[in-house]
Amino acid sequence: MSNIQESAQALEQAIRESEEFNNLKEAYEKVMNDEIAKKMFDDFRSTQIELQQKQMQGQEITEEEVEQARKVVETVQQHEAISHLMEEEQKVNEFINGISRTITKPLEELYAEHAE
Amino acid sequence: MSNIQESAQALEQAIRESEEFNNLKEAYEKVMNDEIAKKMFDDFRSTQIELQQKQMQGQEITEEEVEQARKVVETVQQHEAISHLMEEEQKVNEFINGISRTITKPLEELYAEHAE
Ligand SMILES: [Ca+2]
Ligand SMILES: [Ca+2]
Repeated sequence: MSNIQESAQALEQAIRESEEFNNLKEAYEKVMNDEIAKKMFDDFRSTQIELQQKQMQGQEITEEEVEQARKVVETVQQHEAISHLMEEEQKVNEFINGISRTITKPLEELYAEHAE
Repeated sequence: MSNIQESAQALEQAIRESEEFNNLKEAYEKVMNDEIAKKMFDDFRSTQIELQQKQMQGQEITEEEVEQARKVVETVQQHEAISHLMEEEQKVNEFINGISRTITKPLEELYAEHAE
């Protein structure tokens, strides 16, 4: 196995064992094991994905859709278990972004060297 | 330093020392040190970035722009040093994608568990 594969797997293992990941897992299971919360969260996710896809495909998003999405966000944020899950997701996203920045540093430095 | 930071830095170091990264670096320096090749490559990059941004912002891309971009790609592909650089970039992108898949596996598994 190459050094890179070995290091990537060590990192994967460290993520699995991290407090952040385990807190997220706990928060996620809590929502998934509550039928009403699960339905609210699934609705929220599909609304988000739908709007993102429209945006990426350059389709227009109507004021009505924006308003509808805002209401869905407001509703899920008032649900304690879901808003907790969203906080834990945010934390894990931040540390995954930190990792991405670290591993793309060699490339960034290479390209920055000759940037105009 | 946390396990995660340590593993991420070990991975960064392994990337820096990898044959793929060093081949890319070599190919990149070769293009950057050739004035004509550098100009062609910079033009190619700005055309790409411009079109991507238009696409992301949902702006229309005219047939003329598509045709123009196609010509720029054709021209740079005929330049040996640039087409070599593009091949090395492709290889590094593939292995960075492989690393990303590895480190996002814990999250994917968590979300897949309850997917409908
Ligand atoms: Ca906990
Ligand atoms: Ca070489």
